[in-house]
Amino acid sequence: MVEPGAGMAADIAEQPAVLTRLVEERASAIAEVAKVIAQRRPRLVLYTARGTSDHAALYAAYLTEIRLGIPAGLVSPSAITVYGARPDLSGALVVGVSQSGGSPDLVEVTRVARRAGAHTLAVTNAPDSPLAQAAELTIDIAAGPERAVAATKTYTAELLALLMLVEGIRAGDGVLPASERAAVAALPDLASGVLADATATELADRYRFAERLVTTGRGYAYPTAREAALKLMETSYLAALAFSGADLLHGPLAMTDPDVPVIAVVGTGPAGAAMRDVLVRLGQRRADVVVVGPADLPGAGLRIPTPRVDERYAPLLDILPLQRLALALALARGENPDTPRGLTKVTETL
Amino acid sequence: MVEPGAGMAADIAEQPAVLTRLVEERASAIAEVAKVIAQRRPRLVLYTARGTSDHAALYAAYLTEIRLGIPAGLVSPSAITVYGARPDLSGALVVGVSQSGGSPDLVEVTRVARRAGAHTLAVTNAPDSPLAQAAELTIDIAAGPERAVAATKTYTAELLALLMLVEGIRAGDGVLPASERAAVAALPDLASGVLADATATELADRYRFAERLVTTGRGYAYPTAREAALKLMETSYLAALAFSGADLLHGPLAMTDPDVPVIAVVGTGPAGAAMRDVLVRLGQRRADVVVVGPADLPGAGLRIPTPRVDERYAPLLDILPLQRLALALALARGENPDTPRGLTKVTETL
Repeated sequence: MVEPGAGMAADIAEQPAVLTRLVEERASAIAEVAKVIAQRRPRLVLYTARGTSDHAALYAAYLTEIRLGIPAGLVSPSAITVYGARPDLSGALVVGVSQSGGSPDLVEVTRVARRAGAHTLAVTNAPDSPLAQAAELTIDIAAGPERAVAATKTYTAELLALLMLVEGIRAGDGVLPASERAAVAALPDLASGVLADATATELADRYRFAERLVTTGRGYAYPTAREAALKLMETSYLAALAFSGADLLHGPLAMTDPDVPVIAVVGTGPAGAAMRDVLVRLGQRRADVVVVGPADLPGAGLRIPTPRVDERYAPLLDILPLQRLALALALARGENPDTPRGLTKVTETL
Repeated sequence: MVEPGAGMAADIAEQPAVLTRLVEERASAIAEVAKVIAQRRPRLVLYTARGTSDHAALYAAYLTEIRLGIPAGLVSPSAITVYGARPDLSGALVVGVSQSGGSPDLVEVTRVARRAGAHTLAVTNAPDSPLAQAAELTIDIAAGPERAVAATKTYTAELLALLMLVEGIRAGDGVLPASERAAVAALPDLASGVLADATATELADRYRFAERLVTTGRGYAYPTAREAALKLMETSYLAALAFSGADLLHGPLAMTDPDVPVIAVVGTGPAGAAMRDVLVRLGQRRADVVVVGPADLPGAGLRIPTPRVDERYAPLLDILPLQRLALALALARGENPDTPRGLTKVTETL
């Protein structure tokens, strides 16, 4: 019998290799797609995804607005698949993000969008999937088969593929400028370094009996907070609530009494600076705050160290210790994160 | 000394009167705004909001796509306010939804959008607020001062104002067609009927010791699930997790063991039909499911009855018993929902 969690551990450990493969073997294919999209100058980019891929899509929506100056958003499939909405999508780019490429609602949204005159792109680990067949363009993230049901390496591969896509569109001809290429090429080694650090795994013991947990972050770090919460829920069955730092101040802060652990993802750029006020407020409430990031901050107790990089690249690195935390916590609780209760790899919602 | 919860109870009870006032006194002002927007034919509608108003904005985004066929989405202020994104918003309509109109980040997004060539609209309970001053157009929801910190009557007033706006745009001249006018005019009486039912208040006892709770819904009912979760968190300090029915099947279903109460908002239209599969799956996992809606369904235990209306109108009614549940649960737990810990009325995030 295979050891519980062996699959998830292997998927997590494989991430530096997966990222390297994307950079070395998929760059030209992604550049071609980026070039086509740049030539078409979409007036709007809409992402559609579910679960973990939804967090990669959220990251891409920030990139699209900030780096391309194109309005971007996430579309809920149900307006189209449940209510039959037929929005005017001419000149828009609709991007379906899905590791399996098998969710019928994303396939349906892609088909409807394509018929409505949208450019369509599938970002997937399954280049022969129905989603890839429905879309005009496809980016294969080439992460290889995932062993565990909880997605880890396909998440970071989606993040990197979407980053390379957006920066390729920004460049115009799809080819990343030298500085960007160097920054991207450095990510696999940085990821290896993060995975060599045991802080997150050691931290799992502290949450052994936690029934709920709050994750928070702003800007590019918000998708990391969301994905960390989902990973903890999927594998360890605790109620993990993700809030943007701004929303947390609005109301949910009420529930962060000293018994509630908070994991705050805080970079060293503009969003990290904007999070300082949130950390101070959490500190005033005596919340138990663990910071994921490169810097020690007032209001924070423990810290899971991650490299000092531009906040744009941090999502690829900051999620790694949180994946390991989810794995270690699941094992500490006697669960098998490779086969979570009630979870299947492809969700067939219509 | 005022009785704990008296403010929130009064705000909740006032909702039929607030809705009546909107229908009778604000219809022509809303129609004027709708007419202006219809003439400009925005290519895209972007909503920006925080907290409770974010859920009203989500409802409006569905309405915009389904009823107007215009792509719509929610924009995170931080791309603009934190990272300085300047997306090309020419021809877009940017709508800020905020009861106080005082959140600096929404004001900033509205200013940036207006300078970038967007049409801008503020939907607010404070027509002299900075948000209203920053926007070109304003809809005053005229809900009167809210007594409790947790928003209730401003939420349903925002929903109705946005519904009247979208249907007015659809009509072209801003004036609702007779059938729509009749349906909207019936809502205050239906709301009174819902508030006369004590099921939700009686149910509070069952959740006395719950530490977490899942809310779920699809389509138009998803904003209701989100708002119910926020209200429960703000007032009763339990970890309430909202998922669209589709996302719940993706992974978080793993955490719905028999100990976790689920509140499912299920209408009788297309989204309600799509939720049936979710209810069956929850039933298989022996989850404790309470349904909010007009019909008894397989897989559900108890039900909080709400009127049988088109799913488009249901969000105005289905939230009412859930507000009362939040109030009753807070009181049962010895909390004062009028002044929740750590919560202020205007959140000053930048």
